Amino acid sequence: MITRSHNRTNTQIRPVKINRNYIEHADGSVLIEYGHTKVICNASISEKVPPFLKDKNQGWLTAEYGMLPCSTHERIQREAARGKQSGRTMEIQRLIGRSLRAIIDLNMLGERTIQIDCDVIQADGGTRTASITGAFVALHDAVERLLYQQLIETSPILDHVAAVSVGIFQGAAVLDLDYREDSACDTDMNVIMTGNSGIVEIQGTAEGTAFTRNELDQMLDLAESGIQELISIQKSALGTH
Amino acid sequence: MITRSHNRTNTQIRPVKINRNYIEHADGSVLIEYGHTKVICNASISEKVPPFLKDKNQGWLTAEYGMLPCSTHERIQREAARGKQSGRTMEIQRLIGRSLRAIIDLNMLGERTIQIDCDVIQADGGTRTASITGAFVALHDAVERLLYQQLIETSPILDHVAAVSVGIFQGAAVLDLDYREDSACDTDMNVIMTGNSGIVEIQGTAEGTAFTRNELDQMLDLAESGIQELISIQKSALGTH
Amino acid sequence: MITRSHNRTNTQIRPVKINRNYIEHADGSVLIEYGHTKVICNASISEKVPPFLKDKNQGWLTAEYGMLPCSTHERIQREAARGKQSGRTMEIQRLIGRSLRAIIDLNMLGERTIQIDCDVIQADGGTRTASITGAFVALHDAVERLLYQQLIETSPILDHVAAVSVGIFQGAAVLDLDYREDSACDTDMNVIMTGNSGIVEIQGTAEGTAFTRNELDQMLDLAESGIQELISIQKSALGTH
Amino acid sequence: MITRSHNRTNTQIRPVKINRNYIEHADGSVLIEYGHTKVICNASISEKVPPFLKDKNQGWLTAEYGMLPCSTHERIQREAARGKQSGRTMEIQRLIGRSLRAIIDLNMLGERTIQIDCDVIQADGGTRTASITGAFVALHDAVERLLYQQLIETSPILDHVAAVSVGIFQGAAVLDLDYREDSACDTDMNVIMTGNSGIVEIQGTAEGTAFTRNELDQMLDLAESGIQELISIQKSALGTH
Amino acid sequence: MITRSHNRTNTQIRPVKINRNYIEHADGSVLIEYGHTKVICNASISEKVPPFLKDKNQGWLTAEYGMLPCSTHERIQREAARGKQSGRTMEIQRLIGRSLRAIIDLNMLGERTIQIDCDVIQADGGTRTASITGAFVALHDAVERLLYQQLIETSPILDHVAAVSVGIFQGAAVLDLDYREDSACDTDMNVIMTGNSGIVEIQGTAEGTAFTRNELDQMLDLAESGIQELISIQKSALGTH
Amino acid sequence: MITRSHNRTNTQIRPVKINRNYIEHADGSVLIEYGHTKVICNASISEKVPPFLKDKNQGWLTAEYGMLPCSTHERIQREAARGKQSGRTMEIQRLIGRSLRAIIDLNMLGERTIQIDCDVIQADGGTRTASITGAFVALHDAVERLLYQQLIETSPILDHVAAVSVGIFQGAAVLDLDYREDSACDTDMNVIMTGNSGIVEIQGTAEGTAFTRNELDQMLDLAESGIQELISIQKSALGTH
Repeated sequence: MITRSHNRTNTQIRPVKINRNYIEHADGSVLIEYGHTKVICNASISEKVPPFLKDKNQGWLTAEYGMLPCSTHERIQREAARGKQSGRTMEIQRLIGRSLRAIIDLNMLGERTIQIDCDVIQADGGTRTASITGAFVALHDAVERLLYQQLIETSPILDHVAAVSVGIFQGAAVLDLDYREDSACDTDMNVIMTGNSGIVEIQGTAEGTAFTRNELDQMLDLAESGIQELISIQKSALGTH
Repeated sequence: MITRSHNRTNTQIRPVKINRNYIEHADGSVLIEYGHTKVICNASISEKVPPFLKDKNQGWLTAEYGMLPCSTHERIQREAARGKQSGRTMEIQRLIGRSLRAIIDLNMLGERTIQIDCDVIQADGGTRTASITGAFVALHDAVERLLYQQLIETSPILDHVAAVSVGIFQGAAVLDLDYREDSACDTDMNVIMTGNSGIVEIQGTAEGTAFTRNELDQMLDLAESGIQELISIQKSALGTH
Repeated sequence: MITRSHNRTNTQIRPVKINRNYIEHADGSVLIEYGHTKVICNASISEKVPPFLKDKNQGWLTAEYGMLPCSTHERIQREAARGKQSGRTMEIQRLIGRSLRAIIDLNMLGERTIQIDCDVIQADGGTRTASITGAFVALHDAVERLLYQQLIETSPILDHVAAVSVGIFQGAAVLDLDYREDSACDTDMNVIMTGNSGIVEIQGTAEGTAFTRNELDQMLDLAESGIQELISIQKSALGTH
Repeated sequence: MITRSHNRTNTQIRPVKINRNYIEHADGSVLIEYGHTKVICNASISEKVPPFLKDKNQGWLTAEYGMLPCSTHERIQREAARGKQSGRTMEIQRLIGRSLRAIIDLNMLGERTIQIDCDVIQADGGTRTASITGAFVALHDAVERLLYQQLIETSPILDHVAAVSVGIFQGAAVLDLDYREDSACDTDMNVIMTGNSGIVEIQGTAEGTAFTRNELDQMLDLAESGIQELISIQKSALGTH
Repeated sequence: MITRSHNRTNTQIRPVKINRNYIEHADGSVLIEYGHTKVICNASISEKVPPFLKDKNQGWLTAEYGMLPCSTHERIQREAARGKQSGRTMEIQRLIGRSLRAIIDLNMLGERTIQIDCDVIQADGGTRTASITGAFVALHDAVERLLYQQLIETSPILDHVAAVSVGIFQGAAVLDLDYREDSACDTDMNVIMTGNSGIVEIQGTAEGTAFTRNELDQMLDLAESGIQELISIQKSALGTH
Repeated sequence: MITRSHNRTNTQIRPVKINRNYIEHADGSVLIEYGHTKVICNASISEKVPPFLKDKNQGWLTAEYGMLPCSTHERIQREAARGKQSGRTMEIQRLIGRSLRAIIDLNMLGERTIQIDCDVIQADGGTRTASITGAFVALHDAVERLLYQQLIETSPILDHVAAVSVGIFQGAAVLDLDYREDSACDTDMNVIMTGNSGIVEIQGTAEGTAFTRNELDQMLDLAESGIQELISIQKSALGTH
């Protein structure tokens, strides 16, 4: 059996750090680390909505995701230079947006847009889950600013949301895969849950052989415990325990 | 309570038709219908592999997906005219490719690529699941051609694969959503399974409120029964019962 | 001498089928077949005009054309994936648009746009001519809908329009070339005419040696007879004989 | 009746000037003027062929076309800035390439490519026809260079080629339309012919009402006489009378 | 020592010709030659401003630059066909725009935009400097038209502007490098100055070894004398001595 | 008079921090700060060269530059989403590449490429100058790795290089402008120099009124002293004093 990074057991997440107010110009800005994975999550507010929401008296939240070319083991091509975003990038940024929209009341936000930017500066597996967990905190801080400026009276945030990956590795369920584990595992699943243990999104893929309902259940058990720990870390970072 | 299309109960799939040898020039060609949803699924074989598989003595399978501009209720912009594929398109074609790769042994395929093309000519919900179920049959026929031409000796297809959507609509789990149901439901999940009831992919999204583990279980039960029926329809179409 | 497909003489067109109401969501929808060539022609109406016609109290008609990747003998690259339409595609869709605008009174249409989409699902020569002949029927049905909804009082369609290819093959003029003939002929010409035998468009290209005025005349004679037959088939399909 | 520019009758072309050796770096370079229309036509030789002709022991000729932003009455957007060529540009450059390939023996050219560039610096109607007539002279000079350098022994040019537009304006056939006439005429046709009066390409479009076979014949008569005059001007410019 | 083109000493510019009213449709149009370098500089006025200047009661001036494919020793790819402008093109057109904005009072221009287009038809070094010097004259003529039409009362042009390159070649400072010198020199600097010897822009690059303050001073001395001569030539062309 | 940020006089640079080994996966990685401006500078080595250097027995160095969307006061559009890099981005990355190539012997580097990536995470003026100064240190560390791995025997780095901006603000020369000063100053100049005080690049732009030779000299004096201080900070960071 292979020792997991950070001397973890199969049921432990990596050490997580949340560094708030990371960048000065964003309305909410967080550097989040899941072990060696580091993502800058920024939230910016603009006082307008996309055309399809014009005059509907509600707000919007959208997300973009990127990786610095040197964030990965092998340098990857810069998407701005290549002239388009990859399918993987699009898939991840759509996921981040959906996950955060699940816990915010867009009617309470008013006619404004919150733009989330998640930029990976170092990747070691779990960049999309770290992005979601970190973006929640950046979103929280951006909303605090709206409250402070009295642009809204009540926070539209309905619950916490956090994400973690789980997998089946050599027959056993493991929590929070790093890059080496992700490359080697049979099944890889990303789970996004609320503070209330509601499932917001679940995306599981059999990399090698298909997985069973029983394995799915084991993975979901692990994910739930991991997410509750992540939400606890969010609360500590926000001082809202 | 709203009557479901085709007078279905919550646990029934729509009428499914599989029309083989639809287009002459493809190596496998299927027109599949899930109720009013109609997708042309073609498989073409080329005797080369992408650069990243050069000299690795294995094959590849990849998929592309598109919608005719008039396939939807409101005409959508032609992606070729717009100059790029949407995030949704990319996400779906990546899903189709992964799902089919899960049941094919790429080593047994030899150094060749099977290209799957799924083109929606009429959309009424479930275009991605119909694409996967239909593409399996097109893949099967393309592989038959390789066997017939004695380019390979044994079929690299390891199992059937089929897909269906499930959702939570007004508190109840429902199988195989059409467009109207998909737009109105609280949770939408796509499930892809093998003939052996192994889970190949599961993608569930809470559109409104988060869903519970119990609801997830109900949806998976429905999906499993629906997929077994779809695989039975595949077998009838192929005459392999 | 080579036998022509469908046991035709040089002066005969291929069997033509016109299948109306092919797709549910379009305002007019036709599947047309010229022998093995199959094209879906859809017409959709939108209640606005492009910026250059703003407040000019007239309508517009425009067309787009595409080929499914597997429609041809060798699979072709998907234009949406490639990120741009080829010169050939642009040329054909401009031709389709011009041909239909020639028989419609845009002032009588009112401030709305009719969008024609011609998508080739199987190609065996003559895809642009089949597109025009089929698109006329789809246009007719879309206009019928406007009349039925009393959005306009009189049909803006002034005449029929249909198209056929002619060529010089081994010294003789031949009508309605299939792919094999098109690849081998010396001269290829597309002719678009109205029910009144007016010439709407003529595009002739010497593939090998230049052609003479005499050959041009022979080709035009054949084209005229072919087009009158095609218009007769349109009328049968529409029940307007 | 409106007076034609340059005091022409309906059967006269505009004054044509051909200025050879216009640019130093091209292998053949011509500034051609059809009245106020001015096009720089350059031919450059490269000692390679496109991939589809690899090892087929023949050459290739291809053409590109562009308009300077200020060449037209209203400044048009620069295609390089816009990021793509318009359908019209593609159509014209394909036409120029076909027209010149029609009078050159690609086998005799050897494994090299002649690239034609036609850039309009002032547009007053007939830019595509002037491009073809001018490009022939540039091609001739590039071929002379190959002969002089003894890279080929015999000229692969089989005949002259030139082009002119004709139209039906107020019921009468007119030769070589300028911009004002082109905008106002009922039918516009471009004719490309060889020195031997063979038709290389004919593209006629009814802008308003369809045209008759009789009108087509009148236009072709005019085009033929115009092209013979243009070829005579080419010969004078080349000193090959 | 190598003889300079046009038998120049190190301190002399090439013969410069300015040909006004070159193209009919532009509001100002100049063909400028610096020796064998030839650039068409056009200015066109439009009665609107870009969005960022909306309702600010001032005008704008912007520039675009391009090279004809055959303008260089080796034919370069057409940027319109390639689908994007190179970094070099963008850098040059930004420079041209800044240089001309430096000598025009945008408030006095009113809410209109002057678009400068510089298109190189033959390149032999110094295309960006010739563009600036020529564009000034085209700008002047466009402004004259505004004055003549009484759209503005006073000219917003505050001073002349012209540009020249200087370099260090084999240890000596040389003025107005042609292509051969530019390729071989150690340092290449472009200087843009006003009639009043104010420096508008200076861009110096060490191609080989870094240059000294002393060499910089020598280059600036040469540039200043060259630019005064160029401005004198502008004045002659404009008849404003 | 306005107080400068960090209580600086006109002749002082902002506090500079250089944090080496910032990212794990790059061959050299630096976080550099010029006051509030923060740039990640990474260097990665690949064992190949671009096509134009094939078999020339020398190496290459190239650079890319980007800004995170939230790095600026107002969020800017993500270039990867927009589908192309701006002219400004292209200009800056070309400048960074040239500046570093000026102090490296590409023949000594062998047939390999060093790719520099400069990504701005927080912008407060001087992002391009900070990029160059930081990229030098990343380049140094990447070269150290080549030496350590004995892939090269001698360092190809010939000298230090660093960069600073200078400007004329309210009549006085000031060193190292921050964003507020940059927006308000009359002249903005970027100077890149070697350890030996050789000028590698100088780019000065008059934003408002043109500047004089005397002002240029004052700015160059300031730049030289600033750059010597920056090189001293580079040496401290590298421990090579």
